[in-house]
Amino acid sequence: MSAIRHALSTKREDDFAQWYQEVISEAEMAEESGVRGCMVIKPWGYGIWERIQRLMDDMIKAAGVQNCYFPLFIPLSYFAKEAEHVEGFAKEMAVVTHHRLVADGKGGLVPDPEAKLEEPLIVRPTSETVIGAAMARWIQSWRDLPLLTNQWANVVRWEMRTRMFLRTSEFLWQEGHTAHADRDDAMVETLRALEMYRTFAEGPLAMPVIAGEKPENERFPGAVATYSIEAMMQDGKALQAGTSHYLGTGFAKAAGIQYQDKEGTQQYAHTTSWGTSTRMIGGLIMTHGDDDGLRVPPMVAPHQIVILPMLRENDEDEALLAYCEELRGALASQSALGEPVRVLLDKRPGKATQKRWAWVKKGAPLILEIGGRDAAGGQVSMLRRDRLWNDKAKANFIGLAKDDFIARAASEIEDIQSSLYAEARAKRDANITRVSSFDEVVAFFSEDKRYPGWVEVEWARPTGEELEDVIKRLKELKLTMRNTPLDAEPVTGNCIFTGRPAVERIYVARAY
Amino acid sequence: MSAIRHALSTKREDDFAQWYQEVISEAEMAEESGVRGCMVIKPWGYGIWERIQRLMDDMIKAAGVQNCYFPLFIPLSYFAKEAEHVEGFAKEMAVVTHHRLVADGKGGLVPDPEAKLEEPLIVRPTSETVIGAAMARWIQSWRDLPLLTNQWANVVRWEMRTRMFLRTSEFLWQEGHTAHADRDDAMVETLRALEMYRTFAEGPLAMPVIAGEKPENERFPGAVATYSIEAMMQDGKALQAGTSHYLGTGFAKAAGIQYQDKEGTQQYAHTTSWGTSTRMIGGLIMTHGDDDGLRVPPMVAPHQIVILPMLRENDEDEALLAYCEELRGALASQSALGEPVRVLLDKRPGKATQKRWAWVKKGAPLILEIGGRDAAGGQVSMLRRDRLWNDKAKANFIGLAKDDFIARAASEIEDIQSSLYAEARAKRDANITRVSSFDEVVAFFSEDKRYPGWVEVEWARPTGEELEDVIKRLKELKLTMRNTPLDAEPVTGNCIFTGRPAVERIYVARAY
Repeated sequence: MSAIRHALSTKREDDFAQWYQEVISEAEMAEESGVRGCMVIKPWGYGIWERIQRLMDDMIKAAGVQNCYFPLFIPLSYFAKEAEHVEGFAKEMAVVTHHRLVADGKGGLVPDPEAKLEEPLIVRPTSETVIGAAMARWIQSWRDLPLLTNQWANVVRWEMRTRMFLRTSEFLWQEGHTAHADRDDAMVETLRALEMYRTFAEGPLAMPVIAGEKPENERFPGAVATYSIEAMMQDGKALQAGTSHYLGTGFAKAAGIQYQDKEGTQQYAHTTSWGTSTRMIGGLIMTHGDDDGLRVPPMVAPHQIVILPMLRENDEDEALLAYCEELRGALASQSALGEPVRVLLDKRPGKATQKRWAWVKKGAPLILEIGGRDAAGGQVSMLRRDRLWNDKAKANFIGLAKDDFIARAASEIEDIQSSLYAEARAKRDANITRVSSFDEVVAFFSEDKRYPGWVEVEWARPTGEELEDVIKRLKELKLTMRNTPLDAEPVTGNCIFTGRPAVERIYVARAY
Repeated sequence: MSAIRHALSTKREDDFAQWYQEVISEAEMAEESGVRGCMVIKPWGYGIWERIQRLMDDMIKAAGVQNCYFPLFIPLSYFAKEAEHVEGFAKEMAVVTHHRLVADGKGGLVPDPEAKLEEPLIVRPTSETVIGAAMARWIQSWRDLPLLTNQWANVVRWEMRTRMFLRTSEFLWQEGHTAHADRDDAMVETLRALEMYRTFAEGPLAMPVIAGEKPENERFPGAVATYSIEAMMQDGKALQAGTSHYLGTGFAKAAGIQYQDKEGTQQYAHTTSWGTSTRMIGGLIMTHGDDDGLRVPPMVAPHQIVILPMLRENDEDEALLAYCEELRGALASQSALGEPVRVLLDKRPGKATQKRWAWVKKGAPLILEIGGRDAAGGQVSMLRRDRLWNDKAKANFIGLAKDDFIARAASEIEDIQSSLYAEARAKRDANITRVSSFDEVVAFFSEDKRYPGWVEVEWARPTGEELEDVIKRLKELKLTMRNTPLDAEPVTGNCIFTGRPAVERIYVARAY
């Protein structure tokens, strides 16, 4: 039965990276575009992104942040103003140098030397600099603060090694940019955004995360402090799924964002920025996928219920379709998880088993198969994607009276949402180990465990050469420090790197 | 009173172009970004775009079209495949030639000569070529057709003269791309999209348009037929507000989009594309704006009702705000035009008259001013933005019992939507004149009318040199042919250009 049971040819335990690519392909999420490092996001993948956008945007607006749109291009001179920022990004950007093509005399086209830009333009890798220039125009007085903006946009970072959704040259994201009168107010916003991301990840994405501060060496270029949410993938690696930065006054000084305070003195604003991207979809796949494909949490599933009529291309099809259409209408008029239920009646031609497996691989939360006998008897046959298999090698379709299913559809959807979270949370928690010496770290990651998980350690937060040494020692084990959880228990021992009394906890892991 | 009455310093009749810029600035829609040809879209402008996106996207999805996302960059070789397409676009594109910067030794940065791309990348001016490449992968058999895709994206066309919303180097749009088995099916889709645009313009935007076919010389580069919706601005000029193209098999041949038909023969698909952009916002401004600023049709207004409490910074404010909050809640729980009513309670500090004028200039459909006495007496004071002034030079606030206003709020909103359309329609219809000779055209546009409007003429649809001559004669009058309406009455006379029997009607106008 295994040929039927496992819809994918690769199992997670055999080759996680290969499994990941296969899920993306088989679930028709995305594909290589033929343009270096850029992907095509296909309808099911883009539909999930649209759900993410809708729900995240509601949270952003509820926080009083207003959406704007800023230019794709950043003049080189803007970009060069903040020294650390340049240093951090200058190696991986797309540079526009010409604004016209001309025939090369050999039947092709080349950039027209007559149309060379006086100043090259950078395709935005992030928009602090160009938004900072707008803030400098918009902010005059303390009355203009806080200024809270966000944009949904595409950005480009020239990546040498790309992986779909996780690291692509072009990706889609939202970037929040805010300006405040002082450090305290800016820090409140930085942590509000972080908490919003934590709530979003653990809510709609059903993906447990640790919210915490990144170590100094992992800060955003130019930031004073960087916070992240970190999720554990099923191969034990960490995925940074969202970041929030307190930028101090560095970007304000570079862009001239000044305001007159209540006493009439000119002050620099304190700015923040925070972002999440299509990378979250990679996290969703590696958190919830199984050996049969993707499982999409209902809150972000484009369709929560897919109805599959088992058409036979005979006279009975009409009655079957009428039954399914009535069912669709009854379900669509219900609410689950605070929104109308999203139902698709998939009438496309095709073999019933092929269509079923297509939706299993795509991870639609609930699949209903309806045959002629079901229609005649007022029944439905229901498959919960989060419980695809019971102990027999047979998909656990459950037969139910149609009205019973309609009555329980919302609670099934809500239960899938919470079950996926609980399953991921249990997996994550079981794979975090507290260790109290560097030797234990070495042993933990040297063991012949394929997917070792994370360790939680205590450290003294060294800086300078000591920090360099920590980074180097970890790098030899292919490890990085992820973050210091905001809600950590107090430290009790010594720093595993320096032996001095520890000041905080930090997670160490392999990472995407 | 005129200093109070006219919120803008420029009247439409004095300098329409200056008035347009002033509305954009005073309504805080957008501003110059400092990046050549690119604008910053501010919250009120972007909020209108979000409404447009939401409503248009619903229509696109209802037609069975699926959203995807395709790369920002197009390799030069893709672009060069369709000859007419290259010819049409090659003069106005942003070209990426490098993927890294390097220090220039003088404290600045320059494109790194070591990081020159082997093949330059074009920043998409439109995506036929890159989507065509995806369609060639996705389409194998007649069963894969029709293939209906759309994307919401930014595109770049290097424009020498830019004007906010109407012609900017970067703009936001949606572009639909579809593939079909044959010409007939593709034409049905081309016209479906055109009709969708007409319905959208005349519905949510309350902007009357003529749906018709563009003359040969105005076709999209590479298209077999181009259709447009054309709106008349208040200065009598035409604005092309959306286009739909039947592309024949030209792009399919360039990209290799082939399918096996039912008989087993390889055939080229017939493709279409159709798009609307942030340009529609320019159309909205020039259709509905008046000498006091913008008027936003309720369907696309981010806030349909703005409640302005007249705060006095004293003890009574609390009761006033409680009253306004209760009113806000009662209004937000209502539906108008098929959606929940969108209400903003604007509690920001500031002088009441300044806040009122800010919302008048922004064009919020309904403004409610609530003072302490209104709150005590259960009253509201209502201003309908579409009827800002009656015959006296005083804004026509109307006092109403709160419950009466709540009861009629939805119908007021709906009435504003239809009134704005009716007003624009009457203006447009009054400014279209049928003429039957070229001399009349000359006379019509030579008259000392500041804003002459359009003429409707009959012509024989000449081609080649004859067409060139028509274009030249019109160009001398700064005129262009706009489109041939799909629902035109039959022709009755001779071509005003050639004197031969006419075959169709066409609109002639000055245009944006």
